[in-house]
Amino acid sequence: MFEAAEVGRSLDKETFKQLEPEIHNLLLKHQISLQDTDKALIVIVSGVEGAGKGEFVDRLDRWFDTRYVTTHAFFDETDEERERPFLWRFWRILPARGTVGVMFGSWYTRPIVDHAFGKISDAEFEAALARIEDLERTLHRDGYIIVKLWFHLSSDKQQERLKQDTSTAKFKKSPLLEEYAASYNNFAKTSERAILLTDSGVAPWHIIEATERRYRDITGGQALLTALEDSLREKPAEHAAIVESPELAERDSALTVLDRVDLTQELTEKVYDKQLDTLQRKIHDLAWEMHHKKKNVVLVFEGWDAGGKGSAIRRVTQAIDARLYRVIPVAAPTDEELGHHYLWRFWRHVPRDGYMTIYDRSWYGRVLVERVEGFADRHEWLRSYQEINSFEERLTEHGAVVLKFWLHISSDEQFARFKAREVDPRKQYKITEEDWRNREKWDDYKLAVNDMVAHTSTEKAPWILVAGNDKKFARIQILSTIAERLEAALAEEST
Amino acid sequence: MFEAAEVGRSLDKETFKQLEPEIHNLLLKHQISLQDTDKALIVIVSGVEGAGKGEFVDRLDRWFDTRYVTTHAFFDETDEERERPFLWRFWRILPARGTVGVMFGSWYTRPIVDHAFGKISDAEFEAALARIEDLERTLHRDGYIIVKLWFHLSSDKQQERLKQDTSTAKFKKSPLLEEYAASYNNFAKTSERAILLTDSGVAPWHIIEATERRYRDITGGQALLTALEDSLREKPAEHAAIVESPELAERDSALTVLDRVDLTQELTEKVYDKQLDTLQRKIHDLAWEMHHKKKNVVLVFEGWDAGGKGSAIRRVTQAIDARLYRVIPVAAPTDEELGHHYLWRFWRHVPRDGYMTIYDRSWYGRVLVERVEGFADRHEWLRSYQEINSFEERLTEHGAVVLKFWLHISSDEQFARFKAREVDPRKQYKITEEDWRNREKWDDYKLAVNDMVAHTSTEKAPWILVAGNDKKFARIQILSTIAERLEAALAEEST
Repeated sequence: MFEAAEVGRSLDKETFKQLEPEIHNLLLKHQISLQDTDKALIVIVSGVEGAGKGEFVDRLDRWFDTRYVTTHAFFDETDEERERPFLWRFWRILPARGTVGVMFGSWYTRPIVDHAFGKISDAEFEAALARIEDLERTLHRDGYIIVKLWFHLSSDKQQERLKQDTSTAKFKKSPLLEEYAASYNNFAKTSERAILLTDSGVAPWHIIEATERRYRDITGGQALLTALEDSLREKPAEHAAIVESPELAERDSALTVLDRVDLTQELTEKVYDKQLDTLQRKIHDLAWEMHHKKKNVVLVFEGWDAGGKGSAIRRVTQAIDARLYRVIPVAAPTDEELGHHYLWRFWRHVPRDGYMTIYDRSWYGRVLVERVEGFADRHEWLRSYQEINSFEERLTEHGAVVLKFWLHISSDEQFARFKAREVDPRKQYKITEEDWRNREKWDDYKLAVNDMVAHTSTEKAPWILVAGNDKKFARIQILSTIAERLEAALAEEST
Repeated sequence: MFEAAEVGRSLDKETFKQLEPEIHNLLLKHQISLQDTDKALIVIVSGVEGAGKGEFVDRLDRWFDTRYVTTHAFFDETDEERERPFLWRFWRILPARGTVGVMFGSWYTRPIVDHAFGKISDAEFEAALARIEDLERTLHRDGYIIVKLWFHLSSDKQQERLKQDTSTAKFKKSPLLEEYAASYNNFAKTSERAILLTDSGVAPWHIIEATERRYRDITGGQALLTALEDSLREKPAEHAAIVESPELAERDSALTVLDRVDLTQELTEKVYDKQLDTLQRKIHDLAWEMHHKKKNVVLVFEGWDAGGKGSAIRRVTQAIDARLYRVIPVAAPTDEELGHHYLWRFWRHVPRDGYMTIYDRSWYGRVLVERVEGFADRHEWLRSYQEINSFEERLTEHGAVVLKFWLHISSDEQFARFKAREVDPRKQYKITEEDWRNREKWDDYKLAVNDMVAHTSTEKAPWILVAGNDKKFARIQILSTIAERLEAALAEEST
């Protein structure tokens, strides 16, 4: 593969002087157009150590209007990053719509380095690449233009740069050059495999011979130009062809998974009080144990309006030391959140090892309210099942316990609770016109919940349908599920 | 001081049952009113270990609508936090306007713990408290309501809780209790001093006897209630009395610090090329050295429109390995940024140890464009001199090199550059109606720049007025200043 980038390509000064301003003008023009779209450009600058990645990043600084460019180098990892799923640090700095993000080093860096140095197996390496491909597909569908540049240098050329007398070179060699050069062959093999496995239509690789600077920069610039031109010419469309849509025939909403929930279940005050006390004590200790073992927990609460989410969450947080959890209430997104992929705002709050995040409403809004109200179109919410499953898999494979609760009540019970809220001074403000309007769409929501459970309830991240007509029963069901799952996770750990 | 909180106060069940719902209703009501203001409530929950801080946080969860509350426990510190000025971690989680932030542990925790355990001297302790007071004043002026609760427990009572049989208590004791109890007296003395020194009018302390739970919670609730009531009754005013306004008579704008800049200075192409090369090499190496010594750098670029900021910044970044710096272009704030104190968006990007942040425009917008255009009122921009100086002091005392460049050009030179931009296809988009409008306010800006330099150019964070009519001269002036300052910082380090 790389031999095709060792043929001695170069550009003479004259040609360069002619091409460079053209590329500059066009890139700038496209960057300005990009600002009015909901797309964003991600440029991944990678390749052999010593090939001039830094120089190319400088060139991009000259070509683009840097006010709308963020450059991120993935150099060392902080503990905040290490203690979260690997992809967190990339989600964290994803460029906003209309802007350009230059990644110097990228999600490819760690898998390639770890594999080249023999720290991870072939299987682990391929699994990492599969996750990356999945991420790139997810971003692509959301309008991200991903251009992956690989600057290649032959072993001989790398050795030459290594031996270069730094007193004459403008800058000293990168401090990594020596270490990496010693493993040139490992790196070449590993990188080739990475490129082969991730050279997808949505985010193709450009392998660029980097021996000669002018050729390298012009070729890199042309790759960017082509990608931008292609993407800006497209309609802000669906990428419909890419969606593997699950088949959802219109069904009789009378028959959903919610109908199997036995809403007559209830607990007496006495049994409730006793169990509440026992379970809260247990969860209190389990949460500390999870903290000490550096395991994290993600709890998701969804449910009908007036289903009792808030008070159920309180029964959970009462049990847990306030130092160990955070509750993230999910309401309308901020403009920064709207400026990114819809999962970005949830990635932001993924807990560190040893901590718990409780989402009061969540990413499932996409397949619930956004679906029913038509805020997301059919293609968007359909493809989000897969995106959500991937997201939760990133969490569970990092070791998180993920539990998702749907607080189910009957339509009659909701009506009664709405009415009660209207006369309770402490709850009046909670009941709005919108709640009554949502109620009219009960059957649509029921269908949406059914599909959601069908598509996203997995062994590692299950949906728990909570029988919520009796609040006491619901809370105990939730607390005992949490206790069980945390116990199981800790038991698993210690085996 | 604390003896006043060891008198055995308690509340009987009956009184509690009567007061609790009243407080609940009122707090909720005020919380809802708060949402329509540009204020935010910060509740600091602190006090003796074992006094039930966690229980009180739970109580707040019941009282408030948790959807608009964020709770943060300051428990362990991440390396991202450690490697930045101490206050960064608090700015990071500052509640947005209209919401409530509960801090379980706070900016007081580390100074108190460090002093009680003898890790810092009295002088260091008092300096830390002075910084905290300054922060609280800054937040208060911006509309933050700060309620500081100190839950007290006598040594005997703490010992009792320590000896409590955990098999009967609902939850196990906090793991810190034992360690802290052994140093009760140190803690008491240190805390008393902390409270005395920071019990200001803008953020008073409430010392609450915490032996008996009902009394503790009701008293804490009442403190919150009073603070909310007082603050919501106020006009969304200036707190004008608190501002120590620098006296600024209207002066003849012909005589400003900018007039002392000799704009005739220039460099030949040949000298420029040579110096550029030398200085960039030098800065390249210095930046790596700063990285290895874990020192950080903050560069600020301000200047007239078309003053050459962008191209000057590029000459700096060209010299530095892309892994070591980030450029933050400052444009219109996002709604998340508008939802916080105006310095919040700049705190966000404060570099970690060993890294550099380059701000392309900055917090000085407050005293430049916001002043001239009237976006900030007189009181706001006047008090911001002090806030800015404090902010920069937090950076420099953490060890950062802070340099601020004003790119100065003459009015005629600006006119010529605007005209040139209008015909350059690559720069046309950069010149707007607004630029021409700003130009008409040249004298107002000149005055604003003069005041800015007068109020905020300090030895540790100086303003460098750059003679920008000749771009070559300007760039060399900037690069040589950076090189000098980095060299000096490294020399200082090694002595």
